[in-house]
Amino acid sequence: MSPLLTDRLERQMRFLFEVDKLKEIQRRTRLPQSQRPENSAEHSWHIALMAAMLAEHTAPAGVDVMRVMRMLLIHDIVEIDAGDTFGYDTSGHADKHDREMRAADRIFGLLPADQAAEIRALWEEFEAGETDEAKYALAMDRFQAVMVNYLSDGGSWREHRVSADRVIARNQVIANSSPALWAYARNLIEDAVAKGHLAPKA
Amino acid sequence: MSPLLTDRLERQMRFLFEVDKLKEIQRRTRLPQSQRPENSAEHSWHIALMAAMLAEHTAPAGVDVMRVMRMLLIHDIVEIDAGDTFGYDTSGHADKHDREMRAADRIFGLLPADQAAEIRALWEEFEAGETDEAKYALAMDRFQAVMVNYLSDGGSWREHRVSADRVIARNQVIANSSPALWAYARNLIEDAVAKGHLAPKA
Repeated sequence: MSPLLTDRLERQMRFLFEVDKLKEIQRRTRLPQSQRPENSAEHSWHIALMAAMLAEHTAPAGVDVMRVMRMLLIHDIVEIDAGDTFGYDTSGHADKHDREMRAADRIFGLLPADQAAEIRALWEEFEAGETDEAKYALAMDRFQAVMVNYLSDGGSWREHRVSADRVIARNQVIANSSPALWAYARNLIEDAVAKGHLAPKA
Repeated sequence: MSPLLTDRLERQMRFLFEVDKLKEIQRRTRLPQSQRPENSAEHSWHIALMAAMLAEHTAPAGVDVMRVMRMLLIHDIVEIDAGDTFGYDTSGHADKHDREMRAADRIFGLLPADQAAEIRALWEEFEAGETDEAKYALAMDRFQAVMVNYLSDGGSWREHRVSADRVIARNQVIANSSPALWAYARNLIEDAVAKGHLAPKA
């Protein structure tokens, strides 16, 4: 192994050691069985797998699934420094962008320059939400939170007194990637209301 | 949406709801910060990301990274029924195969038939360990356990009195996919011995 290869591998490893901390970042969603808060690493696993299994439902058809999976595996890494911002917390969103940009500089900057640039671009594409891949990735991110809250009998919706109209307002972006998945999510939301796990209005 | 599409999506969803339980399956490894046991879902996230970032180190070069990432995202799902079997537990391995085959029947069988067959084949390819993709996937699986034990000052090696010679015997399969990564893992193992976090011999 040349000294340069060693240095390159060392930088990759420093990044892969560092991102282990994503397992300690708690989301507001709670797991159906244990009711413990979900963490951002296992959430990222779930949505990468969802992206692989549900790609046929995008409209228009034909996203680059590999690109979406990579995007989803790295989309929350900035939370290691910036923390998770609850989707329904409007005040926390004020400085979210600045905190996350600094986190991206530090954490992606651990990688060799070419990989740092690639991952940074992928993360910024996700954040911008304009490409078909970014729209599908966001749909997975949002859909999974609806799913986990539904499976935990209302979970963080109940805990934080979020009503169905706000859940619908926040998650209807799913339709930008997949009307079929948004129709499914609407069914889950309606069923949660019918079961008394989600208040219809604030 | 046609009734058939609805049924197909319903089956995909039943699978994606079910696999949420992987977040509750504990491994023996402990996280460096909190010392809580790592779960199989966050472990799967970590190795899928590793596979994406380290693919240049395989020898011979040129694995299908997308295939490896899909393999790694689903490789532990059978543990939902079969449980995690500790790598250094020889008795637990006696009926591991039967337990996991039944789990694969039930859980992958939730999916539409075409996807069930695809995921089943991918999991069996991982288990057989013969293709370049399966070898690289196994290397990621093993390497990550070495990494997490190293980062947690010996972690489950200390807890279960596993010595360096057994760690080397178990993990040298990493070299079948990547001599460079095995060299790196050897350095971590040696450093753990030097720091007194890993006993050199049983």
